[in-house]
Amino acid sequence: MRQQPWRSLVNHHRPVEVLRPDQVEEIHRASMRLLSDTGMRILSPEARAVLAAAGCSVDDLIVRFDPDLVETQVALAPGEFRLRARNPAKTLTIGGNHVAFTSVGGPAFCHDLDRGRRAGDQHQQGEYLRVIQQLDIIHQEGGGPFEALDLPPETRHLDLYLELIRLLDKSWQGIALGTERAADAIDMAAIAFGTDREGLAAEPVILAIVNTNTPLTLDVPMAEGLMELVGAGQAVCITPFTLAGAMAPATLAGALVLQNAEVLACTTLAQLVRPGAPLVYGSFTSNVDMRSGSPAFGTPEYTKAAQASGQLARRYGMPFRSSNTTASNAVDAQAAYESAMSLWGAVMGGANLVNHAAGWLEGGLTASFEKLVIDAEMLQMLAEYLQPITIDDDSLALDAIAEVGPGGHFFGSAHTMARYETAFYEPMVSDWSNYERWAERGEADATTRANAIWKQLLAEYERPPLDPAVDEALVEFVAHRKEALLG
Amino acid sequence: MRQQPWRSLVNHHRPVEVLRPDQVEEIHRASMRLLSDTGMRILSPEARAVLAAAGCSVDDLIVRFDPDLVETQVALAPGEFRLRARNPAKTLTIGGNHVAFTSVGGPAFCHDLDRGRRAGDQHQQGEYLRVIQQLDIIHQEGGGPFEALDLPPETRHLDLYLELIRLLDKSWQGIALGTERAADAIDMAAIAFGTDREGLAAEPVILAIVNTNTPLTLDVPMAEGLMELVGAGQAVCITPFTLAGAMAPATLAGALVLQNAEVLACTTLAQLVRPGAPLVYGSFTSNVDMRSGSPAFGTPEYTKAAQASGQLARRYGMPFRSSNTTASNAVDAQAAYESAMSLWGAVMGGANLVNHAAGWLEGGLTASFEKLVIDAEMLQMLAEYLQPITIDDDSLALDAIAEVGPGGHFFGSAHTMARYETAFYEPMVSDWSNYERWAERGEADATTRANAIWKQLLAEYERPPLDPAVDEALVEFVAHRKEALLG
Repeated sequence: MRQQPWRSLVNHHRPVEVLRPDQVEEIHRASMRLLSDTGMRILSPEARAVLAAAGCSVDDLIVRFDPDLVETQVALAPGEFRLRARNPAKTLTIGGNHVAFTSVGGPAFCHDLDRGRRAGDQHQQGEYLRVIQQLDIIHQEGGGPFEALDLPPETRHLDLYLELIRLLDKSWQGIALGTERAADAIDMAAIAFGTDREGLAAEPVILAIVNTNTPLTLDVPMAEGLMELVGAGQAVCITPFTLAGAMAPATLAGALVLQNAEVLACTTLAQLVRPGAPLVYGSFTSNVDMRSGSPAFGTPEYTKAAQASGQLARRYGMPFRSSNTTASNAVDAQAAYESAMSLWGAVMGGANLVNHAAGWLEGGLTASFEKLVIDAEMLQMLAEYLQPITIDDDSLALDAIAEVGPGGHFFGSAHTMARYETAFYEPMVSDWSNYERWAERGEADATTRANAIWKQLLAEYERPPLDPAVDEALVEFVAHRKEALLG
Repeated sequence: MRQQPWRSLVNHHRPVEVLRPDQVEEIHRASMRLLSDTGMRILSPEARAVLAAAGCSVDDLIVRFDPDLVETQVALAPGEFRLRARNPAKTLTIGGNHVAFTSVGGPAFCHDLDRGRRAGDQHQQGEYLRVIQQLDIIHQEGGGPFEALDLPPETRHLDLYLELIRLLDKSWQGIALGTERAADAIDMAAIAFGTDREGLAAEPVILAIVNTNTPLTLDVPMAEGLMELVGAGQAVCITPFTLAGAMAPATLAGALVLQNAEVLACTTLAQLVRPGAPLVYGSFTSNVDMRSGSPAFGTPEYTKAAQASGQLARRYGMPFRSSNTTASNAVDAQAAYESAMSLWGAVMGGANLVNHAAGWLEGGLTASFEKLVIDAEMLQMLAEYLQPITIDDDSLALDAIAEVGPGGHFFGSAHTMARYETAFYEPMVSDWSNYERWAERGEADATTRANAIWKQLLAEYERPPLDPAVDEALVEFVAHRKEALLG
């Protein structure tokens, strides 16, 4: 399958700013006031103890933060860090002006044109992961594209991690839902990298998403996951799901205040656990449809909120995470334009980590095989867009233009022939043939073509080599842990 | 049909720059050298005479330009001008930080889901124009969405202009293909505005696209159209179709040099005809698929070239035109992501006039009824994206957040209820309902929903009032001109 080669992405554009600097400060000040006056409900006693020890006022479950403490702790978060991959060529830099694309994580359902929409299982999860490995534009796997609902929930993460290590040679996300899942990701990563927890802490391998329970709540499993990962020197992306009109006020300003307060609270906790812990400022502010209460994604508000969040993240010197989202139920024009709205907003807003960048459908309830491929095409296009235009004597082509002359044609010219192979972006999904040829070939639309593409990628998949001793150690670890967890 | 209200659009963002300032100058200098050394083939004797009188060297059909002359003349083009519409509320400002969206112009075919792809005719053209009038996000009609192939080619433009004046109250484009078509647009506009050519010249009504014949050729009809329109004080958008790898070098730098040289040559001619003539710097640089020779649109190269062109236009203080393009043969995900790539590129690149902004399909060979509606949705989303975020005490919502408190819900709060009607963007096409409800309603994809929407818009169309005396005068003019043209 023809595709763009793996490459680390750098974004040289000055990020778009939808807020004036004084407006960024207003949101900052309001968040700080919220944290000191209203406070945050922290359900984990261990997390409350860490915060109390640092001088936070703790009143039952509510923790109130001193603005100076927050400022001091947030300043410790690094602006950029590396995430090692099993294949060193696929090690990522998160932050600065780097951009990394992550595949969809978390849905319960999966979908493709042949089999329709159905619950996820381990077999299909394996297929999906193989396609993710095949697509070079995907820099990181997102912690399980969908749930394997045929496996016991207590140990499902172990099977997933084993698959992630075996099937992929690229970076993958761990699951921060509780101490056990986080610790297993760390321990299995250590085995995969032939090291121990100390070696792993020296340079992080795992990144995991920590979601707050908006408004202003951090639940027990997420607090535990955060502390376990950060304690082991691994990276955490803190992402409140501030849905304006539901869990957040029905204004972007209000939703951003809430998001910012929750990110700052969790950042403070993380830095208290381990000063200098690698974190990402996550934004997931969108809005509901006020008529139905349905969540909407890839909307104008979503895009503006993402870009405003990028400004806030940079205000704190933290890497910024956004996402590729759509509420569409089908892989149709709506899915594409809502995704494009999300992706352009993210990239032009200076996102360093674009989560759910490929495969997300139906407001995140479904991982689609065809959407995975179509998103990969859009990501490839954005990656190519980010490459600077070459301007030199050769590319300015004054001699070639003079040679062809007024009224001539460049198709067979020496200047063109020398660039035949590499001149322009070559697509995977897009069909540029004329109507007649396209009609002859059966009038396949982009989604139908994407169906053929993921099947071909799956057929062409080759497992990246893994030391058999490492594989054996992993299998043993999983067996041992399953016994412990299932009793 | 629920849609966003008509509004003049202002883009407060600093345009994205894909070239460094010194690279803009390199392209400028190379274009100037091309115009002075290689020159431009100007097929119209009248145009050659105007240029010769200004000191250009004329060698048979080739005109070579003195760089000082070009600089001086180009400096006369205004940075912004107004285009009057029959409904004064729909008068446009072209240039500065204004953005106007124009419907598709020029295809031979039209398409909808019910009737398939077929040659255009007058009846369907009338339907398409009614939907254009109905869509408030479309600021300007693009000079006939597709050809009425059932009418004689010599007089088809007269029937079109009559329909444009009768069916629309918004700005429309004239056709610059030869003196007759341009003059008829001017004369009919004068009748429609109850004025004469002098009155019309005081403030332009007509804008028309002038395409060069790349490389480096201006043909007779286009030169005539340009001179007729500019002579009458009307506006012209000069747009070379610099397809890299075909009519232009297979490098963006080379294609931009050629585009820029051709725009500067025509701008010089236009300013010599009428100093201060309102012009638009048009860009249509894309590339061919090097494997098949097919033109590609909405590609990464297309987007970069558009944004580079915006920098060149601003270098000369001229309004900048880009377009919404796709090579897709169907209104599918490809059509949407290529259009989104074009539109985001255009708007973030500071485009003042986005031509073909709604309805274009199949590389511009077809005007699609469903694409018209889907593009209108994308344009509405971009227009809403361009509205600044409100940041004040009320929107920051600190009190509302404190009132709801940690773990609460904003859905029924007073702060939310007060914003129930207007909080967020409401879509036309996008379906945000959950999978079950969407499936119950027949699993209609976005294109199918767009089909229902244009039919509803067509059914709800009401003709904007036109003075019967004006209508009569127009009918008389058309009859008289048809007699003259058909003999």
